[in-house]
Amino acid sequence: MTKKIITLGEVLMRLTPPNGLKLEQTSTFDLGFGGAEANVVASLARLGWHTRLITALPPSVIGEKALRTLQQSGIEVANQELDGRMGLYYYEPGFSLRSGKVIYDREFSAFATLKVGVINWHSIFEDATGFHWSGITPSLSIDLACLCKEALEVAQELGLTISADLNYRPTLWNYGMKAYEIMPDLVQYCDVLLGGIEDSEPVLGLPVEACTSDQEVFQLWQQKFPKLKIITTTKRWNANATSNDISALLWDGTILYESKSYSISPIVDRIGAGDAYMAGLLHGINKWSDSPQKAVDFAIAASALKHTIVGDFNWATEAEVLAVLHGASGSRVAR
Amino acid sequence: MTKKIITLGEVLMRLTPPNGLKLEQTSTFDLGFGGAEANVVASLARLGWHTRLITALPPSVIGEKALRTLQQSGIEVANQELDGRMGLYYYEPGFSLRSGKVIYDREFSAFATLKVGVINWHSIFEDATGFHWSGITPSLSIDLACLCKEALEVAQELGLTISADLNYRPTLWNYGMKAYEIMPDLVQYCDVLLGGIEDSEPVLGLPVEACTSDQEVFQLWQQKFPKLKIITTTKRWNANATSNDISALLWDGTILYESKSYSISPIVDRIGAGDAYMAGLLHGINKWSDSPQKAVDFAIAASALKHTIVGDFNWATEAEVLAVLHGASGSRVAR
Amino acid sequence: MTKKIITLGEVLMRLTPPNGLKLEQTSTFDLGFGGAEANVVASLARLGWHTRLITALPPSVIGEKALRTLQQSGIEVANQELDGRMGLYYYEPGFSLRSGKVIYDREFSAFATLKVGVINWHSIFEDATGFHWSGITPSLSIDLACLCKEALEVAQELGLTISADLNYRPTLWNYGMKAYEIMPDLVQYCDVLLGGIEDSEPVLGLPVEACTSDQEVFQLWQQKFPKLKIITTTKRWNANATSNDISALLWDGTILYESKSYSISPIVDRIGAGDAYMAGLLHGINKWSDSPQKAVDFAIAASALKHTIVGDFNWATEAEVLAVLHGASGSRVAR
Amino acid sequence: MTKKIITLGEVLMRLTPPNGLKLEQTSTFDLGFGGAEANVVASLARLGWHTRLITALPPSVIGEKALRTLQQSGIEVANQELDGRMGLYYYEPGFSLRSGKVIYDREFSAFATLKVGVINWHSIFEDATGFHWSGITPSLSIDLACLCKEALEVAQELGLTISADLNYRPTLWNYGMKAYEIMPDLVQYCDVLLGGIEDSEPVLGLPVEACTSDQEVFQLWQQKFPKLKIITTTKRWNANATSNDISALLWDGTILYESKSYSISPIVDRIGAGDAYMAGLLHGINKWSDSPQKAVDFAIAASALKHTIVGDFNWATEAEVLAVLHGASGSRVAR
Amino acid sequence: MTKKIITLGEVLMRLTPPNGLKLEQTSTFDLGFGGAEANVVASLARLGWHTRLITALPPSVIGEKALRTLQQSGIEVANQELDGRMGLYYYEPGFSLRSGKVIYDREFSAFATLKVGVINWHSIFEDATGFHWSGITPSLSIDLACLCKEALEVAQELGLTISADLNYRPTLWNYGMKAYEIMPDLVQYCDVLLGGIEDSEPVLGLPVEACTSDQEVFQLWQQKFPKLKIITTTKRWNANATSNDISALLWDGTILYESKSYSISPIVDRIGAGDAYMAGLLHGINKWSDSPQKAVDFAIAASALKHTIVGDFNWATEAEVLAVLHGASGSRVAR
Amino acid sequence: MTKKIITLGEVLMRLTPPNGLKLEQTSTFDLGFGGAEANVVASLARLGWHTRLITALPPSVIGEKALRTLQQSGIEVANQELDGRMGLYYYEPGFSLRSGKVIYDREFSAFATLKVGVINWHSIFEDATGFHWSGITPSLSIDLACLCKEALEVAQELGLTISADLNYRPTLWNYGMKAYEIMPDLVQYCDVLLGGIEDSEPVLGLPVEACTSDQEVFQLWQQKFPKLKIITTTKRWNANATSNDISALLWDGTILYESKSYSISPIVDRIGAGDAYMAGLLHGINKWSDSPQKAVDFAIAASALKHTIVGDFNWATEAEVLAVLHGASGSRVAR
Repeated sequence: MTKKIITLGEVLMRLTPPNGLKLEQTSTFDLGFGGAEANVVASLARLGWHTRLITALPPSVIGEKALRTLQQSGIEVANQELDGRMGLYYYEPGFSLRSGKVIYDREFSAFATLKVGVINWHSIFEDATGFHWSGITPSLSIDLACLCKEALEVAQELGLTISADLNYRPTLWNYGMKAYEIMPDLVQYCDVLLGGIEDSEPVLGLPVEACTSDQEVFQLWQQKFPKLKIITTTKRWNANATSNDISALLWDGTILYESKSYSISPIVDRIGAGDAYMAGLLHGINKWSDSPQKAVDFAIAASALKHTIVGDFNWATEAEVLAVLHGASGSRVAR
Repeated sequence: MTKKIITLGEVLMRLTPPNGLKLEQTSTFDLGFGGAEANVVASLARLGWHTRLITALPPSVIGEKALRTLQQSGIEVANQELDGRMGLYYYEPGFSLRSGKVIYDREFSAFATLKVGVINWHSIFEDATGFHWSGITPSLSIDLACLCKEALEVAQELGLTISADLNYRPTLWNYGMKAYEIMPDLVQYCDVLLGGIEDSEPVLGLPVEACTSDQEVFQLWQQKFPKLKIITTTKRWNANATSNDISALLWDGTILYESKSYSISPIVDRIGAGDAYMAGLLHGINKWSDSPQKAVDFAIAASALKHTIVGDFNWATEAEVLAVLHGASGSRVAR
Repeated sequence: MTKKIITLGEVLMRLTPPNGLKLEQTSTFDLGFGGAEANVVASLARLGWHTRLITALPPSVIGEKALRTLQQSGIEVANQELDGRMGLYYYEPGFSLRSGKVIYDREFSAFATLKVGVINWHSIFEDATGFHWSGITPSLSIDLACLCKEALEVAQELGLTISADLNYRPTLWNYGMKAYEIMPDLVQYCDVLLGGIEDSEPVLGLPVEACTSDQEVFQLWQQKFPKLKIITTTKRWNANATSNDISALLWDGTILYESKSYSISPIVDRIGAGDAYMAGLLHGINKWSDSPQKAVDFAIAASALKHTIVGDFNWATEAEVLAVLHGASGSRVAR
Repeated sequence: MTKKIITLGEVLMRLTPPNGLKLEQTSTFDLGFGGAEANVVASLARLGWHTRLITALPPSVIGEKALRTLQQSGIEVANQELDGRMGLYYYEPGFSLRSGKVIYDREFSAFATLKVGVINWHSIFEDATGFHWSGITPSLSIDLACLCKEALEVAQELGLTISADLNYRPTLWNYGMKAYEIMPDLVQYCDVLLGGIEDSEPVLGLPVEACTSDQEVFQLWQQKFPKLKIITTTKRWNANATSNDISALLWDGTILYESKSYSISPIVDRIGAGDAYMAGLLHGINKWSDSPQKAVDFAIAASALKHTIVGDFNWATEAEVLAVLHGASGSRVAR
Repeated sequence: MTKKIITLGEVLMRLTPPNGLKLEQTSTFDLGFGGAEANVVASLARLGWHTRLITALPPSVIGEKALRTLQQSGIEVANQELDGRMGLYYYEPGFSLRSGKVIYDREFSAFATLKVGVINWHSIFEDATGFHWSGITPSLSIDLACLCKEALEVAQELGLTISADLNYRPTLWNYGMKAYEIMPDLVQYCDVLLGGIEDSEPVLGLPVEACTSDQEVFQLWQQKFPKLKIITTTKRWNANATSNDISALLWDGTILYESKSYSISPIVDRIGAGDAYMAGLLHGINKWSDSPQKAVDFAIAASALKHTIVGDFNWATEAEVLAVLHGASGSRVAR
Repeated sequence: MTKKIITLGEVLMRLTPPNGLKLEQTSTFDLGFGGAEANVVASLARLGWHTRLITALPPSVIGEKALRTLQQSGIEVANQELDGRMGLYYYEPGFSLRSGKVIYDREFSAFATLKVGVINWHSIFEDATGFHWSGITPSLSIDLACLCKEALEVAQELGLTISADLNYRPTLWNYGMKAYEIMPDLVQYCDVLLGGIEDSEPVLGLPVEACTSDQEVFQLWQQKFPKLKIITTTKRWNANATSNDISALLWDGTILYESKSYSISPIVDRIGAGDAYMAGLLHGINKWSDSPQKAVDFAIAASALKHTIVGDFNWATEAEVLAVLHGASGSRVAR
């Protein structure tokens, strides 16, 4: 596993009120760092992979702090140092029927000023086996959308496995273009795609009213994006801010695999659960290349464990994920 | 909504062990302020009302601190500055089958020395539309019982909407009078009453053995207190210290409205949940004066949200309550 | 109740990450002290007993700190002061399907160097009515196994009620002897035994494949250890790291008593729940000597409450246990 | 004192590592709010004044939180609600020879987008007796420089006492204009001016090489800005991050008054010490209008106390300042 | 040293804002227990003495918590359990020229209701060698003044060494009697007296204008109270809230001994420094009965160390006090 | 600067009571990692060097946590993974005349079981320019003393610059050999030596009674260890636990250079100040190879800054050290 998985994405500082307080109430913040793509490679690093994150952090103490945190998580960072601010977000965890809240303060960040033409993708991808990106990056600016395209072309040329998470956040797409005007052109490069059924029309421009099952949606996607080898989505039900049941579907073009399902109560921190799924899936399809069932089961177990861990990153090891996969309920204290 | 809702009540300092510790174990306290009546107007202020609290705080740093906290919550305070101590209570939250505990240290407080004749009620009520009180105040001293009466007479004279919460705490009525010797004389002024069925005999002096339904109890109350236009009570079941289901009943003299019900798990802080209900109800019957159903649904949703919020006060906004009312389960992270 | 219950056991410092953090994430530890046998007498002290713990703490500040903590819990400590380190363990609480973890760092402790021949057991037991020990102690060294034997002989000679908890931790038995080579020789002295069905073969050397019920296992044990008057075990189901249901069985040689069962959600801290059961049982069989049913019900209620309390020790009072026993669900705030 | 002192300025969120940690080390932040002009009116409010702050906060939870904090401090806020981010700064306190650090992240804030023409200054100043501004505001944008001018013209027209603090931060003036190109045009309206001798050339465009004393500098200023009635500056020596001695000079056009001096060790928090001085001075010249000596002594004592108080605001009361002024050394515990 | 030193006094809960915050600013409290007389015996216990505290704690959780804290400090408590509240005080530490503050909330406490005639002093004093009291107790109520007298008579009858600290707090003497009307009658029983020169007139009724030296004051006292064998006082200079120099004087009727002096910077917590001195003196005059110089040096070194320790109690051991006495400056890290 | 400085040493977990509490008082610990040699390379990494630490951490979560902390500090770790415990130490900071305390619990650690013959020194030193060791390592076991010798022989063979800090801790040398029986054989390989004059006899076996100056001691050392090119020592005076003055001496065989001196008050954390000096010196003699004066000035400024930083490691950058060196007093807030 010496070949690396590479990703591109913004890293944000995360400020969270402690002890269940609302933002209105708190006089302190817990401090962390995260970001959809960084979360995927942090999780992959924990699962034993070599990874590299292309990002842009400012040369401030806060930027360096982000860098150290990423490195401590075993991620190699190819930092395009740029002046500017460090994006941040406030996360107020929810409880029971009180929803969690994310309030972004990420505009005008250093990362948001990244432009095409400055990154040597051939060099970046030299030791890579895969490239992962998410819909967050092209949602931030037209330049970043172009940057994704630039990266994807080289990645495809070099034969990397390309994966993406649609990660649709309607409030982010506010520079003038709609997601469906940008994303299809980027998704066409992908081998592996994680997305929600409900994102089909707004993100891929593919209305799903006519579809009578998830499988038909996946088939529609594959028709539009014939390079796709794996399409996957996660499901959540019996859900409030503190507990939910989860499972996942994986379509490999032939068979629709349904994962095991897990009940999680309490949810300690739901941020990054989708990213943990993505990382688990990339790990799973590499490790059990002949068993999509094992891959999707591993991925959903990884995501389930993430729900119990504070912060954006999934600190669960492969052994811990496998234990859950093999039936561990959490009831035994490991001694 | 420029007319104010006025209340009268004691404000207590609240000392809570952090992190689930028992009082026996803790070496720090989290500090807050609250009180049944203050909680109602804090919640009303959050829902957009102008409110005024008549209370008596000592001119100490702690008294000033209470004052600032109330003002920060948007409450106008008509403080009858009096020497004396600041009442306080220890609150040890419960978990699962371990009950929460409230230990009062409120005797000899400045508020407890308030006397009739010193408050200019006509001036206090000048810009008021409603007056709210609770059974806590007359339980503290005979002087305070008389003060309630004094206020109620002026409030009635001025045509204010008068509301009350019976709030029966047997351990508080210890100055020689029984609740049922005092309370009926005060309840007769009320238009809106919140109380428990089980309080009927000890507080109102009305035995309910003969009643075969909640509605019959409410009819009994209305017979005794013909001014009552709305009688309401909350129900709790499947309950332990960490989770319960709640709903409410509202009787308008004609129809018994039953609210939606909510399951809350985990309960983050149950103190003030009844006060949040009362505030939600006052807001609801004002906003949807023709729909008691909407009013009671809003009130119970407000109370449900309060269970998820640390402290005595309900920080939920009208929009947040409405979201729950319209079906939000808490499962979505608001971005 | 002026006669004492005596125990022998190691006291460990406990280091726990706060706020649900994993060990990998924390930058602080909450600090406590505990140990299987100390937990039993701390709980008994809270229930009103006089107790004495024989242990060996080093004369360091940390050793003294342990001593003060034990004394504050009402335990008399007969400390065999020995140079050496203080054993410790890291406890990472689990959540939902993430298991809790205990990582021991107890090797080479002062206690582990205790030898036979230095403790004057006749003097130690002078004012005793019972002696309790657990399988932890003989698992630590051959010397400690011999020390248990030495104590048990004197305890039997003096007619004390002898109780034991098998407390089987496979990772501890690593000095060369297997548990089943040591434990039967010690269990033969016992009047009261707490153990798991699954420990029968590895700890007692008694395979249970042929048994068709728990009762048959208990009968097998009693056959092998005819001095046993009470055999008891606890059951757990619907279990993950945050919630479980519990009950217990008690066999008095004639009848199999099944306790009430309790659902606990959330579990605040499961460490010491078995020790709380043991203490509850010793208290129960003393208080209701003619009613094993009451004893086992009290014991399981005590254990249930322990699950809701932070730390190794059960801070629940007899009144609090009785309240649960009599049906209190935790839903009322005690005022 | 029912007439108000009005100010205009940006409010920033402040994030501070606790316990002496460097930004590189911390995993939590203490949270506060402040800003040069807000600090002045917070301090004035504490001294008994009615005050009003014109600022622009976004309608986010963080913006509301800032608003509540200001109101809790007794400041009336005339908020020009504007979309945009909330400016913030990181403050790493210094110790001994390690300097404190302020890292701004205030660009693109809601306040920075304020424009001329939208504020009704005549209405804002209706109940005012004074207007205070500082050099921070015109340093942020040309629009804000114009806004200051707009306010100053009306303030002068209405006969308000106008005060200013030069507050020169070279790193802020980065929109193309130099301070000396903007500030003189604004300072000409002032009656009271606080500034450093070293700011004369870069801020006022007045080189001081030829001056042989502070008094000559003040005379130079007064020559250039004949409206100035009081010019004042603070002095610091024997200074490191934890201790310094301070005093102040006040020039009333005739006499140079030198204040008492105070040694402060330790400095608990130096942020806002100049603003506390300004507030103390405005209070002093109002209270002892015939004694500039008393005014400057009061102001420096207020500033000295601020050094001992956490956060941007000076929580010292008039009585506490007077106690220091009258010789209290801090050695007595007030009971 | 098996004979005990006995004392009588109230124990208060202490609530302190953390991290240098003022009471106005804090949202948490650090929790402790203390009291002038309890502090003396806690310190004596740490120095190896057996001690007993007669006090009155309510049977609440908070009362029990106080009891456990005292016991953990090695004090035997003869608790006169009485209903009532637990007295408390807020302590805001000072810094530099900001004074510390103590705000009492101790009225109506259980202890304040103690009456004469209920304590069996002969039994209490059975194993005693000394009795210590302070001027706090008689300041609280006339009953407590009488109780002191009652205790003193028995103590004298039994030949105990009687010591007292005048501990004059003008704000406490508010039940109608002046200190000088009560205290002389109690001081006449004393062998050892700690007091301030400035207390002579208000507490002992002895004006000192005519005295030209401390020694003359002490001679005056001894003339009035001929039983006094040792009179001592502490001196403080170069003092602010964070640093001071201290020394002490001891008059044995013949010679005036002046102790070493110590500079303390920073003062971590000054509360209890006088009590630590008293304990050090009682220890010193017992250990070096022929060397008042050694006794007073030990006492002032103990008090100096207390200044560096958080809380009311002096946790310094005899070895640590002796190290300071023998010149340790604190500069070496003890390994 | 691509060539690395290599070191060998044990890494310990550090547990510190927060907020000035004594170990007796605390209920939490702040958690860190450090060790004399790790501290040197952490500091060098911060100054821009590539470094490598040879150590032995166990494969536990705690071991991994240590590893991550080291990597986050920019140190490359050549971990000889060995079963065993992780050594730890308790650090109680001192204040004023209360000394700080270090209590080791490092016996039986994984590192202490390291043996000769298993480390491929030629490979470890391949890209090295220097090797640093300290007297801590050979003090732990005879095996570790031999390991040092083994490393030193290869380092010398490869022409590395060899530096050492005598770091004499009498309590550590307890495996049977005296320091002076081991250390001279290791010091003979050194080019750069940091040590205290008072260590000459116990560590180097060289009595200094006959020496009349520091220079004579250094000459004595150089005579005995002719390979030494630089001998250096630090001086401390006016010292207590919170403040001291420091300077250093450097002898290059010809001239005795005396560094600038710095007053530090308050000392935030003195642990690692010597290691910060060593790192500063290695950096200084490399950067200013022709100016021992600059090197020693830089080193003492680095050490001074370390006194103001929490934890074992010196987080000061080269720019921050240079600022102090150029006269920055800490009094300016850097904006």
